[in-house]
Amino acid sequence: MSPRKIGVTELALRDAHQSLMATRMAMEDMVEACEDIDKAGYWSVECWGGATFDACIRFLNEDPWERLRTFRKLMPNSRLQMLLRGQNLLGYRHYEDMVVDEFVEKSAENGMDVFRVFDALNDPRNMAQAMAAVKKVGKHAQGTICYTMSPVHTVEGFIKSAGRLLDMGAESIALKDMAALLQPQQAYDIVKGIKDTYGDVQINVHCHSTTGVTLVSLMKAIEAGADVVDTAISSMSLGPGHNPTESLVAMLEGTDYTTGLDMDRLLSIRDHFAKVRPKYSEFESATLVDTDIFSSQIPGGMLSNMEGQLKAQGAGDRIREVMEEVPRVKADAGHPPLVTPSSQIVGTQAVFNVLMGRYKVMTGEFADLMLGYYGKCLGDPNPEVVEMARKQTKKDPITVRPGDLLKPEWDELVSQAEGLEGYNGTEEDVLTNAMFPGVAPKFFKERPEGPKNVGKTAEQLNTEKVAANAKSKGIQGPAKYNVTVGGRSHSVSVEPV
Amino acid sequence: MSPRKIGVTELALRDAHQSLMATRMAMEDMVEACEDIDKAGYWSVECWGGATFDACIRFLNEDPWERLRTFRKLMPNSRLQMLLRGQNLLGYRHYEDMVVDEFVEKSAENGMDVFRVFDALNDPRNMAQAMAAVKKVGKHAQGTICYTMSPVHTVEGFIKSAGRLLDMGAESIALKDMAALLQPQQAYDIVKGIKDTYGDVQINVHCHSTTGVTLVSLMKAIEAGADVVDTAISSMSLGPGHNPTESLVAMLEGTDYTTGLDMDRLLSIRDHFAKVRPKYSEFESATLVDTDIFSSQIPGGMLSNMEGQLKAQGAGDRIREVMEEVPRVKADAGHPPLVTPSSQIVGTQAVFNVLMGRYKVMTGEFADLMLGYYGKCLGDPNPEVVEMARKQTKKDPITVRPGDLLKPEWDELVSQAEGLEGYNGTEEDVLTNAMFPGVAPKFFKERPEGPKNVGKTAEQLNTEKVAANAKSKGIQGPAKYNVTVGGRSHSVSVEPV
Repeated sequence: MSPRKIGVTELALRDAHQSLMATRMAMEDMVEACEDIDKAGYWSVECWGGATFDACIRFLNEDPWERLRTFRKLMPNSRLQMLLRGQNLLGYRHYEDMVVDEFVEKSAENGMDVFRVFDALNDPRNMAQAMAAVKKVGKHAQGTICYTMSPVHTVEGFIKSAGRLLDMGAESIALKDMAALLQPQQAYDIVKGIKDTYGDVQINVHCHSTTGVTLVSLMKAIEAGADVVDTAISSMSLGPGHNPTESLVAMLEGTDYTTGLDMDRLLSIRDHFAKVRPKYSEFESATLVDTDIFSSQIPGGMLSNMEGQLKAQGAGDRIREVMEEVPRVKADAGHPPLVTPSSQIVGTQAVFNVLMGRYKVMTGEFADLMLGYYGKCLGDPNPEVVEMARKQTKKDPITVRPGDLLKPEWDELVSQAEGLEGYNGTEEDVLTNAMFPGVAPKFFKERPEGPKNVGKTAEQLNTEKVAANAKSKGIQGPAKYNVTVGGRSHSVSVEPV
Repeated sequence: MSPRKIGVTELALRDAHQSLMATRMAMEDMVEACEDIDKAGYWSVECWGGATFDACIRFLNEDPWERLRTFRKLMPNSRLQMLLRGQNLLGYRHYEDMVVDEFVEKSAENGMDVFRVFDALNDPRNMAQAMAAVKKVGKHAQGTICYTMSPVHTVEGFIKSAGRLLDMGAESIALKDMAALLQPQQAYDIVKGIKDTYGDVQINVHCHSTTGVTLVSLMKAIEAGADVVDTAISSMSLGPGHNPTESLVAMLEGTDYTTGLDMDRLLSIRDHFAKVRPKYSEFESATLVDTDIFSSQIPGGMLSNMEGQLKAQGAGDRIREVMEEVPRVKADAGHPPLVTPSSQIVGTQAVFNVLMGRYKVMTGEFADLMLGYYGKCLGDPNPEVVEMARKQTKKDPITVRPGDLLKPEWDELVSQAEGLEGYNGTEEDVLTNAMFPGVAPKFFKERPEGPKNVGKTAEQLNTEKVAANAKSKGIQGPAKYNVTVGGRSHSVSVEPV
């Protein structure tokens, strides 16, 4: 029996640099690798999403739509893949349905093939319009389950979630584990359950590597029937990023599975990013492996946010209390997965509860979460806290799809864009400004200056290397400098004491 | 059914710092963690071996026997474990049987419980005396299979090797993968094969993490019946080291297996070494993950050795040829696993072959390897090359156990030690000098000065942190210094340009 082919999604161009180097990689540092990526035999190439879009216009003066078109040109044989936050698109609020349709249409037109659609609360109503829009333009609509651990997030629950996504027309199901929480047995049980319940539906599994355990989870997911798994080339892997692509290949050698990836191409991709990665070292976190989340249930980024908030209030010593408060707040909200934006909303409210008394002061966002304005969580919200939110905000709880409350806004968004200096008259620009109204105006104005690369130059890297070599050798004797003081040059000798 | 208990060997005190920081960790940086390690519930604590012994007397002015006694005192409830290179003991030549007996007896007397006995060539005759000595003193004799890949190293071959170790009285079998080559399917097949063939013999699995794939191998080994696996606490893990202990725990949660380790103790051990590790950063390699060995079959350390040798001969550009020569030389020698010392012997000969013509000049070590003086490899040596070795060295090939050629040497070793300044009159000192005659004399002399710590001090670390902070903030404006030149003080302003 020939081994079963396991598809691989390469993450180097999106999630890997988002997770490892704060999404700072410039397009010019990716271009050279594209031919090898295109020909290595991946199932898809993830290359676009909210943070890459944001970073393009905020830090890199790069048009994200132009980036997408360039990827399309450079990788003509590949499925290009993006991460789409359902009704939020790539922004931080719900958009009216027509904006969702426009965005999906333009993304497809510019080259996108696979749309991984997700919602932070796993509320299918927040994904429905985006999924329908993807299907309408004939592209691959992938429905996503955000994995989390809670009393209401059971294997059976995740299997049911998959069913709802399939009812919505999902061509495949992604099991997305953004906090590296997905343990091997759960991975196996969920994938097996979905396959047993719904037949041979394509399942893609996405894990981060933070806890050091998720390559095993990918193995068990594959044994349970997973079809595609996400990895990043080794020189762009590990830590808060993802499992190394080459390790996946090695893992499957000799088993009943194979990736069919071209190892020579992989090595060439690896060598390219091994050169690029040091340019962005200042954006890297020091985390190599961290299993704390299994006991604390709090993602690392959320923890450091809360610590920052406490310190700003002179209450840095109360982090333990806040950590104990988080599970209560999360339960009161109906157990939302702790990802953006729910992690910030729950975390900030936990800090408020500890500093000012439980729910004495609610943030507007937390009240909205309690009242249903972000959508519905898997668990029910605590009715007493809902009532407090209603009283504090004078807003009524809703049970309808949040998107249904929005009025058509496309024409208004067009006029907004038209008022901006540098607006190029395209729907793409309208969408850019709609999603990032705080950043787009400045970007449109400065766009003609062309892309910036915030990585270090070869010269800077070389200077650092020389300095590091000098340091590792130690200062052997007195060093001589010419120092000019008040117009007169002096020879100065400096010696360690 | 309650989950099957999987034992864990903690590597932080031996192989982890050997692999990550060139074995430089001082005893004083381990002491604080010992109580938690002792009470965490490990199957054993690896804490002694050739490189730690060598580093103690070469770099740390620390008596390795005293280190062992300290571990014994600090961890009264734990099995202490060491790695023993068979007839080589901890040195680099074969020792006569009585020396082997003495060494094992003294090690046991000073506190050692589990002796993991191995031989670089997997020649059981090189392990027999050490195994017998361990059994004689009533300690745990663990027979070791060094894992490697070659045409003669088949799953069946490894199963047979295990049988020979059991015949020798091994209380358990270690499957030792020093190059992170052990892939999941092989791990499963070997462990399953041993269990199926010999019944419920205890199997310990030791993997490095270099290729990023071996936590999966541990999972498959456990599924196949492995009883104990080796890991290192997360703050002393990954890269050329080992898989993180906490990730192993998380990996098994929800499965039919459990480690039973105390997570609070693990976190406390982790926090201790997270503080210690930065002190030794200058000894760390930059390798995070490297899967090259699967295609090149050449361990990273061996590759850089050969590159160094070529460069010294002005032939740095011929590394490709040498890499192609290595498999031929390895095959001619009968496929020795490429670990110390066979990796150096094979690598150097491959360099000689490329520079001077194939086997035109043989190193003495390579000739000895061909003639059987290191023992017997699993494959047969190429008879033509054996003949060339015989001619070049005028030595005859041997088929007997190399140890059988040695004459009693204990009395001679005692007199040698007695002639040394600072010799303390113990058998332990005789053994130290016997194993490291190039280093021990200086150590004996300087021992009264007490242990040195080659890690950075808190003050040095703080200075570096301040400098790094300043750098990350960038120089904001001109910096002012007082510079004294020729006795006159000047105020100098330095500004980035």
